[in-house]
Parts: sequence; structure tokens; C-alpha cells
Amino acid sequence: MGEFELIRRYFFPIAEAGNTSAVLLGPGDDCAIQRIEPGRDLVFSVDALVEGVHFPHHYDPEKLGWRSLAVAASDLAAMGADPVCFTLALTLPDADPDWLHAYASGLASAASCFGLSLAGGDTTRGPLMLSLQVHGTVPRGQAIRRSGAQVGDYVCVSGTLGEAGAALNYLESNNPQADEQAVLARYHYPEPRLRLGAALRGSVSAAVDISDGLIADLGHLLEASGVAACIDVAKLPLSAALKRLVGENAVNLALNAGDDYELCITISPREWGSLSEDIRSRLTIIGEVKPGDGLVINDDGQSRAPGAGGYDHFRT
Amino acid sequence: MGEFELIRRYFFPIAEAGNTSAVLLGPGDDCAIQRIEPGRDLVFSVDALVEGVHFPHHYDPEKLGWRSLAVAASDLAAMGADPVCFTLALTLPDADPDWLHAYASGLASAASCFGLSLAGGDTTRGPLMLSLQVHGTVPRGQAIRRSGAQVGDYVCVSGTLGEAGAALNYLESNNPQADEQAVLARYHYPEPRLRLGAALRGSVSAAVDISDGLIADLGHLLEASGVAACIDVAKLPLSAALKRLVGENAVNLALNAGDDYELCITISPREWGSLSEDIRSRLTIIGEVKPGDGLVINDDGQSRAPGAGGYDHFRT
Repeated sequence: MGEFELIRRYFFPIAEAGNTSAVLLGPGDDCAIQRIEPGRDLVFSVDALVEGVHFPHHYDPEKLGWRSLAVAASDLAAMGADPVCFTLALTLPDADPDWLHAYASGLASAASCFGLSLAGGDTTRGPLMLSLQVHGTVPRGQAIRRSGAQVGDYVCVSGTLGEAGAALNYLESNNPQADEQAVLARYHYPEPRLRLGAALRGSVSAAVDISDGLIADLGHLLEASGVAACIDVAKLPLSAALKRLVGENAVNLALNAGDDYELCITISPREWGSLSEDIRSRLTIIGEVKPGDGLVINDDGQSRAPGAGGYDHFRT
Repeated sequence: MGEFELIRRYFFPIAEAGNTSAVLLGPGDDCAIQRIEPGRDLVFSVDALVEGVHFPHHYDPEKLGWRSLAVAASDLAAMGADPVCFTLALTLPDADPDWLHAYASGLASAASCFGLSLAGGDTTRGPLMLSLQVHGTVPRGQAIRRSGAQVGDYVCVSGTLGEAGAALNYLESNNPQADEQAVLARYHYPEPRLRLGAALRGSVSAAVDISDGLIADLGHLLEASGVAACIDVAKLPLSAALKRLVGENAVNLALNAGDDYELCITISPREWGSLSEDIRSRLTIIGEVKPGDGLVINDDGQSRAPGAGGYDHFRT
């Protein structure tokens, strides 16, 4: 079977994964065609993943399939967008059928889980890398931007932080223990917070997804909004598995390690009070937006700037 | 100046190049936002270019800037789409300011010329490659597909063919003569037929852009349409420069060489008669759609299949 046949066989079924009625024409023509419902805006983002930079050499292709789409879809979650479809530019040293089958399998699982159908792509020979562009929609004008944080807003994060960062120590482990398995799952199978992001549309003032680490990504949000913030180390949501594995290092990982793909949002106290109990239970208030610029970290009564106190060790 | 500052300085101005009112939010947030006018469909395509595969090592970055966007935009032309915006995933071994400046300069020229504004992107470290996704729009349901060719339609191509293929012989030339310069310009600065494609919307039955060679790309169109075609070698549009440079080889190049980025279309004789003189002057009828499947090439009264008679030498 030739390369083109392999791709047609393994990848074209992923065209059926998501909101297929919105994709009028999928893979196989010069372009794909998407119909945007009246009253909605298109929201889109591209993410490139390079072997040896964004994932290890010889990384399991099935996990890479999931991870590559999850990482891209996380940007849709940060905008509060409803997922629709995606494109894949795949560069491969050779068309290994086993690799392609496993990669497509992981990609198909993620596509189905996130509601994203494959709309088009390009496959070329070269060093292993992937570039995925995800498309979603929002009601007109309702995309959540980074730039809306207001003084007095709460700073919140979803889920727990730091586990994907801890997982990097166990990637080569042949027989991971239960806690190690738990943090490895966070690295291999990140879950973009698509439903949470969409549910927060209209309530939050700003949002960003945590791909490079809380300090880095919250920093981008604060800069875009022209405000400062203070966050409290004691309030960081840390999983029991992470604390058992790395002890006090959990805080460093939660602040600085990337790859968690949780959301960091800002929200006024009034809007916070209007959120459903279910939504609030998925978020943790870790600080507050302040006037000025920059981030201050409160640690057991002491305030320090990010980067002080050894946090930079874990910058990714 | 850091890498991020370089990118902001050189690339963000390209966000102003095209239909900026349609791009509600450009580079710098988690996603970009595009507003599609009511009654129009989104049309999009991604193209990846790898150093050493799609362009030579140490290729002039200014030319690469133009070429990378032109190649992607050509797919919009083939669909008859009006250009709007694009994203760029750029992977670079290092952030060389001179390279980035020259690349962005060529990209900006193309973006301005084609009416495509930069809406977003991703820059990562790795082997040199580029993945560009272009966005256009068409009135609802009016995108030109590959699959509409009908028996009895004319097969036409725009412009002249084979020059970009001939240029490959002169890429290293230090002092190219006038004819060599003419074919080199076709390779370095391809001109996607955006205005022609849009003007043909509603008139033609199918279209494809010629990136891999006439035989290959017309073959895709015929397969998608479930028809055959016969084309006449004597009717192939060949430039005087190409004929002077390569003599009888011009036909082989016109049939098999890629990188011309002209359009190949099918159109009924009735619609052909309704085209304006100006549009007809930009097209050459080279054959006719037939029942069956496959392509037949008439050469001085003899019919042969593609691939016979040495054409495969020049397959790219």
C-alpha cells in the first residue's frame, strides 16, 4: 500500500469525528470548506510540535496522536470556543505503516473525544514534526481574550497543576508505580478544558491555557490586560499523587512547569458568585488582580517575584 | 533583541496586509478570530514546506517568504476564493535576525500583493520548515471543486507551463542570462491566480492548481470527477524563453514539472463562450473531457498515455 493510500485509510475516517455538518468539504480537494453558522465568529489557532523539542525522540505515536490534538485544542478552550474541525500538516522521515496507524489511532480518539473533525492537511517527507490548526466558533463577540482582566478580579485555575512537569522524570520508567502512572497520564493524555472554557464564556474577564507554566502564562494574561496580580502558594491546587512523589517541590512544579493544559482565568467576585456550584468546583481561587504590572507570589507570609527563590530551575 | 521581540517587530506588521476588518483578533492571544460575512463560506488550506525537500538548502529567505505564501494561496485560487488571512507555523534552527528580517520582508510583499493578513502563528526551534494555512471566502456553495468536470468540457490552463521546472537548472547560476532570469522568476516568485480563480467562479465546472505538474494535477481532477480527458501537446502554452532555453524538452517540462502554480480548469463550451475576452485571453484550451478514466496525450497525431515516451524523467 502506498503512502497516499495509507493516509487515506488511516486519516480520512477522522473527517467524521466532529461537527461534520459544519465541514462542507473535507480532505482531498485543494481546500476544505467550513460553513460558519450565522451569528458566530470563527476562532482558530496553530501549534507546531517538533520531535526532540516538544516531545521525546521515539515517543509513542499513539500518545503523540492524542497529545498533538489536545495541545492545539487547549487554545480553543482558553477562548471559550466550541470545537469544530482541524487541519494537520505532518512531516515524516518515512511512511512507516505501523507508526501512521498508531498515530492516527491516538489522533482519532482525541478527535472524537473533543468533537473535532479532520478537515484537511498536508503530508511531506522531512524531520518528524506536526503542525495542527484547530477551528472553533463562538457567538459573535463572545470569545474570551487575554486582555480583559480587571483590578479586583479573582485569579483562578482549573484542575491541579504540576503533574505533567513531574511526569518528565518518569518518561523512561519501565515499571511506573501508581502515583507515577497518574502524573504520566497527565503528560501523555492532556485533557483540554473545552466544556469548562465554553461554560465560562460571558462570565470570566480573561483566560489563558497553561502550556508554558502558570507564571509564564498568567504573566502573558497580565501583560495583555495591563494589570498586576498576587497569587498565594498555599492555594495552589496540588494533587495528592504529586505531593507524595515530589514533596515540597510540588509548588515549584505547579508554578513553573508546563504541559498541564489547565485554564487560568480572571473573574469578578460578582460573576464568581453567579457561577454554578458545578463550575466553581472545577476551579480554585489562587489570587487576585491588582493595579500595576507583574506578578507577586505570597509564600507563607513572604512576598516574592517569580524567578526568585529558585523557581527558575524548573522553567521549561 | 530577543526572539519574541524580533518576531513581534518583523511579523506583526503583516497583520495589516489584507482584509483586516475580517480579522477581529490577530497574533498574540491564544487564538485568532475571523468574522465571516453572512452568506459566505470559509475556504482554507494548509501547505508545509521543508528545507531540502520543497526548497534548496540555504535558499534566499526573502524569496522563501514570497514563495511560501504564494504556494499556499494558489490553493485558494483553485477554489475561486477571495483571500482573507493566513497563519504561519515557523520552525527555525536559530533566531538569526538577518534571516528573519529577509523572510518577513518577502512574506510581507506577498501578503500585501495577495491581500492576505497574518492572523496568527507559532514559532519553534527545530529544522527549517514552514507550514502556512490560508483562509479565503466564497459566496455560499460557490467554491470550485475538483469533482465537477463533465464530458464535453474544454480543458484549459492559465498562463504558460514548464518554466518553473526549467528554473531548477539555473538556481546555482551566478550570472543568469535574460531567458534564465525569466524562468528563475517563475520559480522564485510564483503568482497565484487569485483574481482569475475568483472571476471563474460560477463559470467553470472544476479546477485545480498546478503544483506537482499538469499530468499529476489534471489526473487528480479527472479522478475526482470520474471522467477522462484528451489533451493536445501542440496546444500547450509555452513561453518563448522556455523554448529558447530547452528546445523540445519544453513539452516534457510543461507536462510533468511542478511549481508553475497556474490553474487547470474544465469549462463547458457554452460557459467558455460567455467568458469575457479578457478572461479568455488568460486561458488556453488544451483538450477536452471524455467519458471513462485517465488521461490521453495527443502528440503529432499519435496518442499515448502519460508516463510513456520518457515523460517520467521529469516527475518531481
